[in-house]
Amino acid sequence: MAMIGGGPGSFIGPVHRMAAELDGAVRLVAGAFSRDEARTQSAGRDYGLEPNRVYSDYRQLLERERREADGADFVAIVTPNDSHFPVARAALDSGFHVICDKPATATLSEAIGLAEIVRRSQPLYALTYTYTGYPLVREARDLCHRRELGQVRKIVVGYTQGWLSERIETSGQRQAVWRTDPAQAGIGGCIADIGVHAFNLLEYVTGLRVTEVCAELSTMVAGRALDDDCNVLLRLDNGARAVLHSTQIAAGERNRLQIWVHCERGSIAWAQENPNRLEVLVLNRPAMTLHAGETYLGPSARAATRLPGGHPEGYIEAFANIYRDFAADLTRRATDPTAQLSPTLCGIDAGLRGMRFVECAIASSSNGSAWTRLNE
Amino acid sequence: MAMIGGGPGSFIGPVHRMAAELDGAVRLVAGAFSRDEARTQSAGRDYGLEPNRVYSDYRQLLERERREADGADFVAIVTPNDSHFPVARAALDSGFHVICDKPATATLSEAIGLAEIVRRSQPLYALTYTYTGYPLVREARDLCHRRELGQVRKIVVGYTQGWLSERIETSGQRQAVWRTDPAQAGIGGCIADIGVHAFNLLEYVTGLRVTEVCAELSTMVAGRALDDDCNVLLRLDNGARAVLHSTQIAAGERNRLQIWVHCERGSIAWAQENPNRLEVLVLNRPAMTLHAGETYLGPSARAATRLPGGHPEGYIEAFANIYRDFAADLTRRATDPTAQLSPTLCGIDAGLRGMRFVECAIASSSNGSAWTRLNE
Amino acid sequence: MAMIGGGPGSFIGPVHRMAAELDGAVRLVAGAFSRDEARTQSAGRDYGLEPNRVYSDYRQLLERERREADGADFVAIVTPNDSHFPVARAALDSGFHVICDKPATATLSEAIGLAEIVRRSQPLYALTYTYTGYPLVREARDLCHRRELGQVRKIVVGYTQGWLSERIETSGQRQAVWRTDPAQAGIGGCIADIGVHAFNLLEYVTGLRVTEVCAELSTMVAGRALDDDCNVLLRLDNGARAVLHSTQIAAGERNRLQIWVHCERGSIAWAQENPNRLEVLVLNRPAMTLHAGETYLGPSARAATRLPGGHPEGYIEAFANIYRDFAADLTRRATDPTAQLSPTLCGIDAGLRGMRFVECAIASSSNGSAWTRLNE
Amino acid sequence: MAMIGGGPGSFIGPVHRMAAELDGAVRLVAGAFSRDEARTQSAGRDYGLEPNRVYSDYRQLLERERREADGADFVAIVTPNDSHFPVARAALDSGFHVICDKPATATLSEAIGLAEIVRRSQPLYALTYTYTGYPLVREARDLCHRRELGQVRKIVVGYTQGWLSERIETSGQRQAVWRTDPAQAGIGGCIADIGVHAFNLLEYVTGLRVTEVCAELSTMVAGRALDDDCNVLLRLDNGARAVLHSTQIAAGERNRLQIWVHCERGSIAWAQENPNRLEVLVLNRPAMTLHAGETYLGPSARAATRLPGGHPEGYIEAFANIYRDFAADLTRRATDPTAQLSPTLCGIDAGLRGMRFVECAIASSSNGSAWTRLNE
Repeated sequence: MAMIGGGPGSFIGPVHRMAAELDGAVRLVAGAFSRDEARTQSAGRDYGLEPNRVYSDYRQLLERERREADGADFVAIVTPNDSHFPVARAALDSGFHVICDKPATATLSEAIGLAEIVRRSQPLYALTYTYTGYPLVREARDLCHRRELGQVRKIVVGYTQGWLSERIETSGQRQAVWRTDPAQAGIGGCIADIGVHAFNLLEYVTGLRVTEVCAELSTMVAGRALDDDCNVLLRLDNGARAVLHSTQIAAGERNRLQIWVHCERGSIAWAQENPNRLEVLVLNRPAMTLHAGETYLGPSARAATRLPGGHPEGYIEAFANIYRDFAADLTRRATDPTAQLSPTLCGIDAGLRGMRFVECAIASSSNGSAWTRLNE
Repeated sequence: MAMIGGGPGSFIGPVHRMAAELDGAVRLVAGAFSRDEARTQSAGRDYGLEPNRVYSDYRQLLERERREADGADFVAIVTPNDSHFPVARAALDSGFHVICDKPATATLSEAIGLAEIVRRSQPLYALTYTYTGYPLVREARDLCHRRELGQVRKIVVGYTQGWLSERIETSGQRQAVWRTDPAQAGIGGCIADIGVHAFNLLEYVTGLRVTEVCAELSTMVAGRALDDDCNVLLRLDNGARAVLHSTQIAAGERNRLQIWVHCERGSIAWAQENPNRLEVLVLNRPAMTLHAGETYLGPSARAATRLPGGHPEGYIEAFANIYRDFAADLTRRATDPTAQLSPTLCGIDAGLRGMRFVECAIASSSNGSAWTRLNE
Repeated sequence: MAMIGGGPGSFIGPVHRMAAELDGAVRLVAGAFSRDEARTQSAGRDYGLEPNRVYSDYRQLLERERREADGADFVAIVTPNDSHFPVARAALDSGFHVICDKPATATLSEAIGLAEIVRRSQPLYALTYTYTGYPLVREARDLCHRRELGQVRKIVVGYTQGWLSERIETSGQRQAVWRTDPAQAGIGGCIADIGVHAFNLLEYVTGLRVTEVCAELSTMVAGRALDDDCNVLLRLDNGARAVLHSTQIAAGERNRLQIWVHCERGSIAWAQENPNRLEVLVLNRPAMTLHAGETYLGPSARAATRLPGGHPEGYIEAFANIYRDFAADLTRRATDPTAQLSPTLCGIDAGLRGMRFVECAIASSSNGSAWTRLNE
Repeated sequence: MAMIGGGPGSFIGPVHRMAAELDGAVRLVAGAFSRDEARTQSAGRDYGLEPNRVYSDYRQLLERERREADGADFVAIVTPNDSHFPVARAALDSGFHVICDKPATATLSEAIGLAEIVRRSQPLYALTYTYTGYPLVREARDLCHRRELGQVRKIVVGYTQGWLSERIETSGQRQAVWRTDPAQAGIGGCIADIGVHAFNLLEYVTGLRVTEVCAELSTMVAGRALDDDCNVLLRLDNGARAVLHSTQIAAGERNRLQIWVHCERGSIAWAQENPNRLEVLVLNRPAMTLHAGETYLGPSARAATRLPGGHPEGYIEAFANIYRDFAADLTRRATDPTAQLSPTLCGIDAGLRGMRFVECAIASSSNGSAWTRLNE
């Protein structure tokens, strides 16, 4: 694996490295961590790489790693959003498989272009929608897909953070700087940074498709160019209704992503900050709590834990589950050129859905919260 | 106190009796529990009343109790929504003070009429918005009103029930029958039954006013005439944004009313099913949990508990707090004819706000979820 | 009902009044609240009694109320522990039924004497072990008694308070003064005040009997005459083992009474500070949570709630359940002189068990924590 | 790093590998995973090692790795308890630093012998008392050591598992087989497997020393040779009292390790199954909850997280914190031969304390739960 982005000060770069290597099937061997030579080499040392596998130009990385006998076989893209598309395109053009931070691209038109490339060349292309790596998210998905609780009728999904409550981007906080800058983040702020996680979780867990949105995006902290608070009503393809709210200005909150799915005969609830439990409510029955690592879980959830029940796994392990599935896909692809992405992973379709959602929510919001069609 | 409504099979009638009498300052002395003579007398026996103080016609009750030396000094109205207005008007016309189940009336025009009567004759008129009786709701309110955490920016309030997941009104479940019948419930189903509780809680706690709503009301259980699921975006008079969702078809849920208020420097969270705690998050500080009955609480919260910390009080005690405040108001009014309703109580203004919200949400929903002005 | 004790400043007196009257079947009609005439009359006014039914001498109360046509039919004893025995004896001798705060008496020998009186004259005699009134404690008991989860193997019960962390008895805090004074509290401090609640809960829920104890009682706050911290190992009659710990010096804690019962095929857990839920764990099955007010509960638990699920009831309602059962017993006794105390209530046997436990724990502690037999 | 033990079917071997490599400072390069050649090679492949670095005889590993230029610089011992001592002694004799699974040895006399070797040759020797790696355990420790809440008065520590509720060792469950076999596990069952974790956590967090124990160890599942349930009263060197209970027969429980430390002015509580939060109660103040990853935490806790607040880390990360500190110690030792083990780590002293506790508890239990001195 080669990493592009993730240089000094990056939050997500080291997470990708830890997650990728956790299960022993993947090793980071090369990287273009920064366009600045000193910074990329500094990061390379931190990642434990040989200097000659550390680049300041990702195109150079792609070219050389492609030719090396022991070159990287896939590329992980962890740059700010505005580079996702050009880097992914270049990597795919060079014949690499790609794993990329969400969102897939900075704009919908880029996403459509990328989808076209992926459809044509059929690489393995996955997005690290981290929360889909949690075992109990996968259990929730299996429960929904099996329709054991009947049809889904109502979903509430919220993603609540507080770290942008103050205008910290003006004092140089690196994560805040690029996320609040339209040039680097794209057209969406909170909606593209975390709203899209909530949207993806909703579609991932329920297996339903959002068909229309009615959104209001706001900028609550004065002086900010992009939205930092998003409230959305949604309609789904089976007639269900949903509410999605995401915010980054909920002072004191950490990273509270929660989803409730209400079906005809029961409900399920999951919360990222306490991820190893899934609540399952059934009409007129005692409430149930499913715990990660237990034998009564389905195969997807069981495959996504390393430890027995009561030994908490967390965000890094969820991330690692995505890499683990991706590594297994690479192995299958090595012998079967038609092998596709595991159904547990989010590929370009989810990426395209996410970008459509972001653009659709922004359009609705700009248009007086009018119900706006979210096309396929 | 005399009760109108609350006959055999009533849920809320006995709650009013327990709540009213809990603190020893009020006693139920008369009632018109049912229009059926046998039923009203049966209820009267259950309530421990003398048969000659039990009526089948509320007008008769009003007339006689007014003349009795030891007659009731106020009337509690616990009938289905459609009677709230005529009964309240008659009681007020007879010179009684009134405490009434929410909503104030079945329609907005009735509410406007009632407000006019109340403004003219200046009785004590209170609505039992039960959840405003919880000590930590009052603490939350004091926290918000003092603006210690800065301005409110975002509110999420949800009221989630599951008891109408199936069409139990067709099998005669008494509570379901009238709530799903437009003739008895009025124009709103879920929105008027519990959505209005969520709305009132939002305005009560924050002290802000909702100015516009964008709503989608749905009927998820086929065959039902009124809405059973409501999702609403809201704008507030200080520029804050809010989401309100209420549902009665969340199978397996009980009575999950929750509110999160996010301010500039911190957030507060309260949940009705675990009501004796209030979470207070402050930016970059340890999370705090305030517990009922503790000495560090403000005077409103301290006045609303009977027991030291760690001794749970619940729904009946919250209800009793409303009666306690109302009884204190009656005592003050006895010597001071200008004494007004305690600020802890919800009076006709809150009732009128609630009805405006219901009509406004229905109007918005009928009009493609267009943003609709909620007038004063 | 007549109350003895519970004068100005009492915590538990008003609780008894509220609990007794909550369900409408009992009314406080007389009281001897204090030996001081002014204080007893002041309390009488607060309780809403006629002055001629308010006494300063409990013997006078017993004599007069016995003779009155509408005199009290039972006596509630809420004095400090040292008076429990003489007052109960006098009341029983006067032909009253008795409901008494725990512990039954101040010493074991008094308890043996009282038990003899009760056995002889067969009154209805009940102790307000409050926590046995919670619906989910009764559900836990039914679960254990039915042995659905197999034999009990291990119990952990803890009762943790912090209000005596400082020596507040020296500054006149009324509750602390008598509880830390051997002359009023008896030979046990924490062990007799709350340790005995934990012990009773253990035997009540499991239906097992403790046969031996190994205890260490300590006084952690210097200058205090009685224990304020108790740690006890226990052996039960079926071979099970248990740990009981109670403390009043856990600074910052409120009233955390918790019990875990581990059986062959599952475990149950209940906590007083969140009393409307019961956790039931079954080997290799999803964890279950039972909620008060739900239809799937057994008849004991269902009979002990007034409200549907999700409407919290608390300490007063639990207390009221004891009074409700006692009132039902009184009604049955009125027509059937052989009617005995409901099995949901704790009578003189539980009182005697409690006193044996207190004395046994103190003896063990004084004897180097030697295992000490707890006789029948 | 070379690993000894951890072959096919091992739970803890792969955990050590993941934990050691997580932060990029350590790499597994050799191993003697099993005495069986095929099995050790199979494990070696799973761990991604070159076959020539995989051994079936740990002595051979020690000899060769010592001579290799790029040989392992320390050994991780993950065998069943009975081998801990001989393997550690051999590794230390060969000049390796050692990191070893708890307990240090199978018997106290072995531990004394090992301590003598460690004192003499001054290697870096650490035990993986996993739970001491959690950031909030380290915060709790700092809070206690700073005495901000005053002196410790009372501790309750419980470790509750249910996986040995049935006699699964007879059906070949690998983890159960050796843990219930005195020949492999040593003289203690539950007390040595998890009781010692609870004991270590108590001493680690409080900085106090246990001076006396009064214990009852039981075997609740018939046919088992070692204890599976342990209840212990403890006295501490500052006069504090404690209760320690551990069990493996609590059917339905997972891995519930919890500690409550009650001090003069406040209390702290931590639970392993929800490890990213620490409750801090202060007398007459709102309860506080500290969350991992937040800036208000002390340096020890902050150094032990990789992610911002709200991104859960778990058991593997806690484990990795031990390796990370150990790796830092190795680095310091490389330039400073007097560099000692980090104070955050548990070394031979903690190992010796643990074995003394196990033997002392067994002795007390065999002697009628007599208070038994736990020597230095």
